[in-house]
Amino acid sequence: MRYEEFTIEGRNAVIEAFRSGKTIDKVFVLDGCKDGPIQTVLREAKKTDAIIQYVTAERLNQLSETGKHQGVIAYAAAYEYAEVEDILNNAKEKGEPPFIVILDGIEDPHNLGAIIRTANQAGAHGVIIPKRRAVGLTATVAKTSAGALNYTPVAKVTNITKTIEELKEQGIWFVCADMDGEVMYSQNLTGPIGLVIGSEGEGVSRLVKEHCDYVTRIPMKGDIDSLNASVAAGVLMFEIRRQRDFK
Amino acid sequence: MRYEEFTIEGRNAVIEAFRSGKTIDKVFVLDGCKDGPIQTVLREAKKTDAIIQYVTAERLNQLSETGKHQGVIAYAAAYEYAEVEDILNNAKEKGEPPFIVILDGIEDPHNLGAIIRTANQAGAHGVIIPKRRAVGLTATVAKTSAGALNYTPVAKVTNITKTIEELKEQGIWFVCADMDGEVMYSQNLTGPIGLVIGSEGEGVSRLVKEHCDYVTRIPMKGDIDSLNASVAAGVLMFEIRRQRDFK
Repeated sequence: MRYEEFTIEGRNAVIEAFRSGKTIDKVFVLDGCKDGPIQTVLREAKKTDAIIQYVTAERLNQLSETGKHQGVIAYAAAYEYAEVEDILNNAKEKGEPPFIVILDGIEDPHNLGAIIRTANQAGAHGVIIPKRRAVGLTATVAKTSAGALNYTPVAKVTNITKTIEELKEQGIWFVCADMDGEVMYSQNLTGPIGLVIGSEGEGVSRLVKEHCDYVTRIPMKGDIDSLNASVAAGVLMFEIRRQRDFK
Repeated sequence: MRYEEFTIEGRNAVIEAFRSGKTIDKVFVLDGCKDGPIQTVLREAKKTDAIIQYVTAERLNQLSETGKHQGVIAYAAAYEYAEVEDILNNAKEKGEPPFIVILDGIEDPHNLGAIIRTANQAGAHGVIIPKRRAVGLTATVAKTSAGALNYTPVAKVTNITKTIEELKEQGIWFVCADMDGEVMYSQNLTGPIGLVIGSEGEGVSRLVKEHCDYVTRIPMKGDIDSLNASVAAGVLMFEIRRQRDFK
């Protein structure tokens, strides 16, 4: 497994991480700090996809594991991100119509890890996550995926709806999971498909939902609101698996 | 919700908890301590289902939240346990053939909570857990169940295989989830059913498996070993739901 260090602290260490091509998800910078090395950090960060967050000294001290952050802490991805193209190639190599899982804002690393694990087992070709307002490939995600991150590509995109539109042009249909959809058992979920799962609290955002071709629903029989996000994703992915291979 | 205190510390508090009828899952007693109040604790514990565990002073100090354990700490259930009979009555009241989930040793409270939540949503009538080598209804379980514990009865039994045999006499069939089973989609999972799910690390124990009528399998397509226990349970429960109501 390619677990790597998660938190990088200190000016030189962070600059070095950027220059070596390490994937940085987020940089925390001391608000108001404008000296040379910090400017270099910001310049390097802007060349990449990294999110820059300006924080107080108290917040930095809280985030710091070494106590020696020198005004800057970076969160590196524990794993390398793939490209959306890699996911399509994965399907092509297996001679199967693409089956992609799109996560619209999963925040809990245990849920993300469990979903990547399930995606691997259900025969999905890859997972797409957004750059903002979602957890990235942290060490906890890697661990919870139980090794699936070594096999299932995960791509990070800036704009989920733009990615959906691009994939639609390649003939992929998008189905989003929501309570007002049709019951999944009576829908046709075969063919090239993108399954869109919402965040733990909010579900799928309105804009993303509007870009989907149809809405699907797990038929709930219970007295409470919903299912755990990774359980719901698992039930949906295996319904797609059933319709693809066992119908 | 009926969340209650989880840890009870000190001799009088623990004796009082037993006498008030609170459900105690486990009592930790200082090894070698034999004075009057401790003897009373042990006597009360033996009248109930509570597991007694003799531990060192270091271990007690570690478990203590107040620092004032006086040689005894009890873990109370955050929720009341139901009886197996309550689960059967739940099915009868709904006019449905019983659908029971039996967990052979789930240890992670988040998994147990998520499984109870899914059981509620999939239309299962209750969950049975073993007394030993498994997590009980702790506050974390209650929280993770997202309210489902208010609706779905959970019974705790001393001997899973004995319970299975008793339920068989009432016409319930038992299916256990394991990798060497038949693919679930081609099995008949309708009628009165008990679904047996194994522990996170070990799966279903040999003895319990031998008492089941058949073995079922989620068809895995991936490169890794297995699914997360609560995801696997969810996929299986909703396949039962599909066969019951959507076939």
